[in-house]
Amino acid sequence: MRAGRDGIRVSSIVMRIAVDVMGGDHGCGVVIEGAKRALLADKKITAIYLVGDKAEIHAALPPRGFRDHRVRVVHASEVLTMDDKPAAAVRRKKDSSIARAVELVHDGKADAVVSPGNTGGIFAAATFKLGRLPGVDRGGIAAVIPTPDNEFVLLDAGANIECKPIHLAHYAIMGSIYSREILGYQKPRVGILSIGTEDTKGNPLTLEAFKLCKHLDLDFVGNVEGHDLFKSKVEVVVCDGFVGNIVLKTCESLAVGIFTMLKRELTTSPHRQLGALLAQNAFRTIKRKMDPEAYGGASLLGFNGAVLKAHASARERAISSAIGITAKNLQHHVNELIVRDIARANQRLGAAGLLPPSMGDN
Amino acid sequence: MRAGRDGIRVSSIVMRIAVDVMGGDHGCGVVIEGAKRALLADKKITAIYLVGDKAEIHAALPPRGFRDHRVRVVHASEVLTMDDKPAAAVRRKKDSSIARAVELVHDGKADAVVSPGNTGGIFAAATFKLGRLPGVDRGGIAAVIPTPDNEFVLLDAGANIECKPIHLAHYAIMGSIYSREILGYQKPRVGILSIGTEDTKGNPLTLEAFKLCKHLDLDFVGNVEGHDLFKSKVEVVVCDGFVGNIVLKTCESLAVGIFTMLKRELTTSPHRQLGALLAQNAFRTIKRKMDPEAYGGASLLGFNGAVLKAHASARERAISSAIGITAKNLQHHVNELIVRDIARANQRLGAAGLLPPSMGDN
Repeated sequence: MRAGRDGIRVSSIVMRIAVDVMGGDHGCGVVIEGAKRALLADKKITAIYLVGDKAEIHAALPPRGFRDHRVRVVHASEVLTMDDKPAAAVRRKKDSSIARAVELVHDGKADAVVSPGNTGGIFAAATFKLGRLPGVDRGGIAAVIPTPDNEFVLLDAGANIECKPIHLAHYAIMGSIYSREILGYQKPRVGILSIGTEDTKGNPLTLEAFKLCKHLDLDFVGNVEGHDLFKSKVEVVVCDGFVGNIVLKTCESLAVGIFTMLKRELTTSPHRQLGALLAQNAFRTIKRKMDPEAYGGASLLGFNGAVLKAHASARERAISSAIGITAKNLQHHVNELIVRDIARANQRLGAAGLLPPSMGDN
Repeated sequence: MRAGRDGIRVSSIVMRIAVDVMGGDHGCGVVIEGAKRALLADKKITAIYLVGDKAEIHAALPPRGFRDHRVRVVHASEVLTMDDKPAAAVRRKKDSSIARAVELVHDGKADAVVSPGNTGGIFAAATFKLGRLPGVDRGGIAAVIPTPDNEFVLLDAGANIECKPIHLAHYAIMGSIYSREILGYQKPRVGILSIGTEDTKGNPLTLEAFKLCKHLDLDFVGNVEGHDLFKSKVEVVVCDGFVGNIVLKTCESLAVGIFTMLKRELTTSPHRQLGALLAQNAFRTIKRKMDPEAYGGASLLGFNGAVLKAHASARERAISSAIGITAKNLQHHVNELIVRDIARANQRLGAAGLLPPSMGDN
C-alpha cells in the first residue's frame, strides 16, 4: 500500500462485484453473458457474484461456457419487479436478488453492486442496507448524457425529489469527482440547471444552492439553462431529482423521436433509400455516440459501496460495460474521494456559516 | 351577432394587432416585412399597429412597398433589451415599444400584441397593464413542441416559477382550449409532467394538481413522464414554469445538437456527401417539422388580450406566422372560451372543496 495522488490510499485493489442477474428485461442469461464478457475484458476483477435464482443461473451457465474461477453464485428466491413500490418491496421481499446483492457489500463480501432492476428498489436497498458515506446527507443518481463534443454528468437523475440546497452542493462535488475519475475530464465545469444564466435567475432551491457552490473548490460556472446543455459548456449539471429525471427521459425520448422521423423520411423514395445506404455509417456513428448503453447505466453516488443501475433493457454489451464502469469506480477510489471532498466542503461551508444546523455534527 | 358553437358569441370579428417591431434580433425591417406578409395572407385582419421608433419604421417602410391602408405607426422611443430586468424595466421605460403595444390593447385600440422581445418584459407588461382574465390566478406561457406524429402544448414554459396546484389545473384548461382552437385537436389529451405515470408519483405540487385535474371536464390522462413526450400520448403537457422552461430549452438544444452531429458526420467522406445529397429532402422535411418558427412563438395565456411572444431570432416568415396565429386566436375567441371554462372549473373545484380560499371570490 502506498500514498497516491491526492493522498488517497492506493492499495492493490480488490474488486468484488455483486451482479443482480434477475431484474432486467431480457432474463438472467443476458446478464450472465454480460458478466462473462466483463471478466474476459478485465483480468483485474477479483470476483463476480451472480445473485438470483440458483436453478435459473445454473441452467444459464453451461451453454455459455462460463467457467471462470472468479464466479460465485448466490441464491435469492425473489425478484423486485418494475411494478413493486420500491421502499415497501425492499422491506417485504427480504430474499430479493437486489437485497441479497447489496447485503454482500454490507457484509464485506463484495465491494460493488450492479443491477438492471427497478431503480427505486436499488436506491431503497442502498439507503437501508449500505447507508450513506460520512458527511453526505442524501445519495443521488448520476446519469451520463452525450453531446456533440463532450458528455455531461446529470445529477440527480431521479432519486431525491425534494432537494435542499446542501444536496445540490454535494451533487456538484460528487458529480465533479465522477466526471474526472470515470469520464476523464481533468477539470470538469459544473453548472446548476436553471432558467437563466444570471445568479438572480432560478427557484428558491437553485438560488440558495448557487450561494453554496460559489464557496466550493470546484470549477463552478454558475447557472446553465436548457439551451446550454448540448453546447459543451459544462461537464456536470446539478438539479433536483424531479427536474433531472424529466430532463433525462425527455432527452432519451426526443432522440428516439428524431431518429424515428429520420428512418421514416429516408424510406419514402428510392432516391432517399440510396442516400441513406451511402450515408449509413454516419447514422451509425451518431447512434453509437448517443447510445445510453455505452455508459453502462447510472451510478448511485453517496453510498457506502459502489452501486450502478444498468438499463432494464441492457443487453450483454451494456451489462459488460456497466461492470467495467463499476470496476473503474473501484480502481479510482471514487467513494474515498467523495468522503474526503465532502468533508472539506462541509468544513468550508460551516466556516462560512452556510452549513444547515442539522449537518453540524458531520 | 349570433350564438355559435359552445354558446360563445360569434360576431364579425375585429382583429387589430399591435406589433412591437423593436425587440427582435434582426431589427425592425424584418418584423415590418413579416407584418406585410401577414396582411397579404389574411384579408380579415382589421389593422396592424407597428409600434417602435417612428423614424426607423418610416425608413423601413418605402423600400418594401408596404402601403396597406390597414397599417398604422405608433411611436415609442425606448426598447426593452434582453439584458433588462423585466419587471423593473417595464416600470422604468414607460415609452418602451412593448409597453406602448400592450397599452393599445389596454386602451381598447387593439385586440392583441405580438412581440419578438424580452419574454419577461412582455409577461410583466401584460401582467401590469392588461391584468388577468376573470377567475385566472396566474398567466402562463404556452409553447408548441412538435413530435413525430403530433405536437403538444407545453404550459407553463417559463412565466410562473413557483406554481400552486390551482395554477397547473388552470394551465390544463387553457392548454386544452389552445390545442383545440389553434392546433385543431378535437379532444386534446392532457397530462401532468412528472417522474412516473402512477398517481402516487411526483412532487407535492404535481400530486395536488393531479387531484384537481381529475375533477375537471378534460381528457385528463394523468401523469406523463419525459419518455412519453415524443410518443404522441398527449397534446397538452402542464408543469411549473421552472420545469417547463428547462424542458423547452433542452429540447431545442438537443435537436440542434443532433443536427450538428448529422451535418458533421455527413461531410466526412465523398460517399456520405453523396448520400446526404440524395437524401436531402428527407432532412429538409424533418427540419421543417421540428422548426419552432413554424408555430410563430409562444402565446401568453390568461391575460385580458391575446399576447404572443415571437422568437427573438424570428425572421419574416416567423413573424408573419406569429401574426397569423394571433389572428386565429382572436377568430376562435380563445380568451372568451378560457373565461367560460375557468369559471366552470372553479365552480366544480369549489363544490368539491378544492378551490384555495384565496380564490373563493372568483
